[in-house]
Amino acid sequence: MADRVPTPGRIRPAPEAPRRSFLKRAFAGGAALAAGRAAAQDDANLPPNVPAWTRSLGAPVLASPYGMPSKHEAGVRRRESPGLTRTPHSSVAFTPLQSLFGIITPSGVHFERHHAGMPEVDPHQHRLIVHGMVREPRIYTMDDILRFPSVSRVHFIECGANTGMEWANVAVPTVQYSHGMIGCSEWTGVLLSTLLAEAGVDPKAAFVLAEGADGAALTRTIPLAMALDDVMVCYGQNGEMLRPEQGYPLRLLVPGVQGVSSVKWLRRLKLGDTPWNTREESLHYVDLMPGGKHRQYTWIQEAKSVITSPSGGQVILDRGFHEITGLAWSGRGKVRRVDVSTDGGRNWRTAKLQEPIHTKSLTRFRIDWRWDGGPALLQSRVIDETGYVQPTTGQLRAVRGTRSIYHNNAIHTWRVAATGEVSNVQLL
Amino acid sequence: MADRVPTPGRIRPAPEAPRRSFLKRAFAGGAALAAGRAAAQDDANLPPNVPAWTRSLGAPVLASPYGMPSKHEAGVRRRESPGLTRTPHSSVAFTPLQSLFGIITPSGVHFERHHAGMPEVDPHQHRLIVHGMVREPRIYTMDDILRFPSVSRVHFIECGANTGMEWANVAVPTVQYSHGMIGCSEWTGVLLSTLLAEAGVDPKAAFVLAEGADGAALTRTIPLAMALDDVMVCYGQNGEMLRPEQGYPLRLLVPGVQGVSSVKWLRRLKLGDTPWNTREESLHYVDLMPGGKHRQYTWIQEAKSVITSPSGGQVILDRGFHEITGLAWSGRGKVRRVDVSTDGGRNWRTAKLQEPIHTKSLTRFRIDWRWDGGPALLQSRVIDETGYVQPTTGQLRAVRGTRSIYHNNAIHTWRVAATGEVSNVQLL
Repeated sequence: MADRVPTPGRIRPAPEAPRRSFLKRAFAGGAALAAGRAAAQDDANLPPNVPAWTRSLGAPVLASPYGMPSKHEAGVRRRESPGLTRTPHSSVAFTPLQSLFGIITPSGVHFERHHAGMPEVDPHQHRLIVHGMVREPRIYTMDDILRFPSVSRVHFIECGANTGMEWANVAVPTVQYSHGMIGCSEWTGVLLSTLLAEAGVDPKAAFVLAEGADGAALTRTIPLAMALDDVMVCYGQNGEMLRPEQGYPLRLLVPGVQGVSSVKWLRRLKLGDTPWNTREESLHYVDLMPGGKHRQYTWIQEAKSVITSPSGGQVILDRGFHEITGLAWSGRGKVRRVDVSTDGGRNWRTAKLQEPIHTKSLTRFRIDWRWDGGPALLQSRVIDETGYVQPTTGQLRAVRGTRSIYHNNAIHTWRVAATGEVSNVQLL
Repeated sequence: MADRVPTPGRIRPAPEAPRRSFLKRAFAGGAALAAGRAAAQDDANLPPNVPAWTRSLGAPVLASPYGMPSKHEAGVRRRESPGLTRTPHSSVAFTPLQSLFGIITPSGVHFERHHAGMPEVDPHQHRLIVHGMVREPRIYTMDDILRFPSVSRVHFIECGANTGMEWANVAVPTVQYSHGMIGCSEWTGVLLSTLLAEAGVDPKAAFVLAEGADGAALTRTIPLAMALDDVMVCYGQNGEMLRPEQGYPLRLLVPGVQGVSSVKWLRRLKLGDTPWNTREESLHYVDLMPGGKHRQYTWIQEAKSVITSPSGGQVILDRGFHEITGLAWSGRGKVRRVDVSTDGGRNWRTAKLQEPIHTKSLTRFRIDWRWDGGPALLQSRVIDETGYVQPTTGQLRAVRGTRSIYHNNAIHTWRVAATGEVSNVQLL
């Protein structure tokens, strides 16, 4: 696909627009415009004055034994949507997708969603119980878990309610709020099939109940076939132990399934022969359908994609070349193709996908674009390896109405105004 | 390779050793033994008492808008080797490889090596200059750089002096100090070839000089053929902007080449027709050979591997099943195979490799092992896709003597004593 990469010369400002041109997106502060003007003073073919930090000694090593981002990136942080939930202990803080690169979500800004707040678990006291319809019930310490054969795999976790506010014509301002209940990490742990083999599953068992050690004692039913496939009991995330918000020291990971099933602070796995119909799978996490019925036990996060740059709240400050980039994923396997439209879905071009493509993982797509300064409607559409095509909002509503909260995977639209301002609009 | 995974039953303590068995490695504190004893009290087939954190409300979301590891993981941190350098501004802090999983190095503990301390660079003021033997010299702002077509790739960075202390029979105690000048990240940026195409390289140019904006104004020569291959000008690391220790806001990344060439805080790229023979490529970063000669401009980090668990300083507290795991890499491409010996190199078995295998990237290997309680000598040996086999210390010394500092990629040995204590020994 190298022929689709623009020649670098194109990126230069057009002769009629000699000012520095950039998309206001990467830096947290509001100083970008001022910096752009300052740049013009340096703009001869001579090195600029040597900056202060080149004329002095910097900080010693171990200034931070555990490092943090630059203070200039303080705006790249999780954010809460005010009023979304009744208490901050049952709330969600969203991933700043508009500021991220590649497919790995930094653990520090991975979205968090709690049902009774984030417990502080002592790993030396924590236990995992495996019981119910098994030959030999087990209680494991964390040290026991760490001795099992391990695997590391890259997978996304998406809350079932991600983009849920968009069902009812609420166009939230930024991609952080519209799609930020998702993250993607290199997870490390033990396959659940390994633990279940050790316990010895009763041939009549068909479901696993997973319970968290948080104050909600959150419980979810997992079909046994799924549990024996690719479900992991994880202690590692992006190379280190899980973060507290992500279930330290132990969580379930159910790849491709809505996040609530990936039970955090995992303390109990019970084998049984019927679903448990718990609070979080009967009162919540059900899909309200037209006519008042609801669908229960809808697990899979179907294929979905979104453009993260340019995206809502950003301003394109100059016409000419820009890279459009975003994320695509599917709960059923690998992303096969992503198409991008800049005219609201009339014409589509196929984007480049970042290799290697992992299964049930975020996949970064990129495509060149020349903004002509006029209005534009940016959309992305993913096709996964099963052939499933991401639906339009109209197609999704035709089947599921407008009363649902969960599993909104519709094509998303960003409007670029002639001023360069990017906003969220809903096209059916 | 599924047939090589041990049956889970093997992990249980042998009947003659009914106490909880574990490898003391994952947790920072020294409380593991005490916790093991406490566990015995819960060890009936009944759920333990419900812990305090399940009977209370946890922390709200956004307790940390930018999250950090659990306080129980405070020991997983960069460490400095006292006395290694004259000042902490020209020193190195090592990656805690013994505590990490998978292949991604958490940015917070990625090793750092500075020559004049870590500068604090203002991204709005930072400029990248491209000049010398080019058609059109350029000065770029960060906003300019962010507009170019981008790529994200997983690569390791290893200091040329990693494992350098081992040339002269110094067996440092832990893998953090012996091999911790390495890290692996998903890097995002612009291919250098893209920037050079825009500037227009003079056909007579053959080398690129890269200069950092730190107080050392560190400079290194890169052959043009290498620069046009896979070298990146990076602003992203593991999904977010570079950390300050890693060159915020812009660094070079020269995949497979000793770390010093991946110039941090990158401010200048100059094209020329001869190598520059700078301080950091004539006084330092040369290989002292037998007879007093030295080799200059030795770039590539040849294939190398090390077992990270069990490793020096750890204690195996019980016989029976343990997973041996470690990291392998090659500056020439992909890892093809890793063999592991538990008897000092007499017998070898082939380990499982974590998929997908990236080029010029860390590759995680894992293999099952049953410790019989006797002394053991653990070694790993990598073969890369070029067919190159990691040498023994004896083979390496036969060619390069014992006076060098750089490019020690010899097979490493950990001795397991009958007490379970693991230490660093040198086998030729």
